[in-house]
Amino acid sequence: MGATLPAIDGSTQVLGIIGDPIAQVRAPGALNALFAARGLNAVLVPMHVAPADLDTFVAGARAVRNLLALVVTVPHKVAILRHVDHPSPRVQRVGSANLVRREPDGGWAAEMTDGLGFLGAARAAGFEPAGHSALVVGSGGAGAAIAAALLEAGATRVVVTDIEAERARALAARLGAEVGHPDPRGFDLVVNATPMGMRADDPLPLDAGALSPAQFVGEVITKPELSPLLVAAKARGCRFSTGPQMVAAQATLMADFVTARALNAGETRPA
Amino acid sequence: MGATLPAIDGSTQVLGIIGDPIAQVRAPGALNALFAARGLNAVLVPMHVAPADLDTFVAGARAVRNLLALVVTVPHKVAILRHVDHPSPRVQRVGSANLVRREPDGGWAAEMTDGLGFLGAARAAGFEPAGHSALVVGSGGAGAAIAAALLEAGATRVVVTDIEAERARALAARLGAEVGHPDPRGFDLVVNATPMGMRADDPLPLDAGALSPAQFVGEVITKPELSPLLVAAKARGCRFSTGPQMVAAQATLMADFVTARALNAGETRPA
Repeated sequence: MGATLPAIDGSTQVLGIIGDPIAQVRAPGALNALFAARGLNAVLVPMHVAPADLDTFVAGARAVRNLLALVVTVPHKVAILRHVDHPSPRVQRVGSANLVRREPDGGWAAEMTDGLGFLGAARAAGFEPAGHSALVVGSGGAGAAIAAALLEAGATRVVVTDIEAERARALAARLGAEVGHPDPRGFDLVVNATPMGMRADDPLPLDAGALSPAQFVGEVITKPELSPLLVAAKARGCRFSTGPQMVAAQATLMADFVTARALNAGETRPA
Repeated sequence: MGATLPAIDGSTQVLGIIGDPIAQVRAPGALNALFAARGLNAVLVPMHVAPADLDTFVAGARAVRNLLALVVTVPHKVAILRHVDHPSPRVQRVGSANLVRREPDGGWAAEMTDGLGFLGAARAAGFEPAGHSALVVGSGGAGAAIAAALLEAGATRVVVTDIEAERARALAARLGAEVGHPDPRGFDLVVNATPMGMRADDPLPLDAGALSPAQFVGEVITKPELSPLLVAAKARGCRFSTGPQMVAAQATLMADFVTARALNAGETRPA
């Protein structure tokens, strides 16, 4: 563990990260360190919420007056939108959110930083999407955000694919992307934006045997740190970026959004 | 602030302390220090919940699978019982609870440690209730627990009083106590178990001008640390115990109850 946090008291503002499963999430470490560095009396804690319980959970969360915001992860990034009153333009375009924040009017605002986080991790690992082609496997919340960010960043061609073909088709139509198959051949960038790899017995999300050393492989899974796909990609000589690197790359963006209200309200920790 | 906590990760078990208001609560500091000392990956955070929102909140809390337990404070200590499946014998006798815990069957167990905490604080300050008379002002959750604990500890006479006379009468009947008035004269021990004193413009809960130096005054309010009643009692030469001392005295009992499940499940922090 190592890292420590300021003490929690009755004035601490609470944030939850919701997901199912939850043990793999990395955001609490990254964001709590940022809150502490900013002198903010706020803490992010994990909240394990199943899909069938999301509506009941959100109603309860709305009743917690010092609950500042939620970080939203798999499988809630699309479903959370039915509880959002003020989606950002990016959230409206992408159709999913990874952050919601309580607004002064009592409504919830939403933002999506997964795409920018992915770009940050890929660029830090030496890959610039502009002028390159990309295959994004998985068209859920993270895949949608990454596909949109790649197009915004100037990728020449973005192909999305999903076991749920209709979902991939709808996303492609919304973003101006193409629909394809999980075959990595011919792409400069290949991204896993599915949960495949979180469990030891998951199949690989795409045909890793077809990867070549010139290709860059991006991953969203945070646990294991090196997913089975990345292990295979590394063995074949590919460069890559990991899920934890994506979390780290977007931590500041996430902290800025979720604490905007607290900072405005002057809810800082006394010196 | 000063004190620090172990880092929170995706495997952290979450506990909430619910109250309205919430900023005054002391339990997070005390319990989080105990969790850390026990090597338990668990964190207690404040949750500001209004009375009208309690049912919605509890439904949402039940949906959070890593929510281990709730610490319950004013004004929810009686109302929480309608959500409790397995009340302890003490909770049934007292009619209120300050702790609820998720059981393996999905139901919630409840315990009440306020009375034992009060006894601990009074004894640490040099007052032994056995063989003495006591006036308990306030017959809500805390007052009920304290009156019951005083009778169990061998107090010769326990008188309860409340602005809500019917509530005091019902409590007295349930415990075998008496009903009286907020007049401290003639009692060895005088306890404020009302919220009066949390706000600067609150009236005193009893006639402090009638206190004499031989009397011991007990307080449940945690903020301010020295309540207006205790300031008056101290000025008149009385010995006393404070709300924060009561929290400290019961911290171990609270931690034992709320973490029993986590400890049983082996949910400890890796070394």
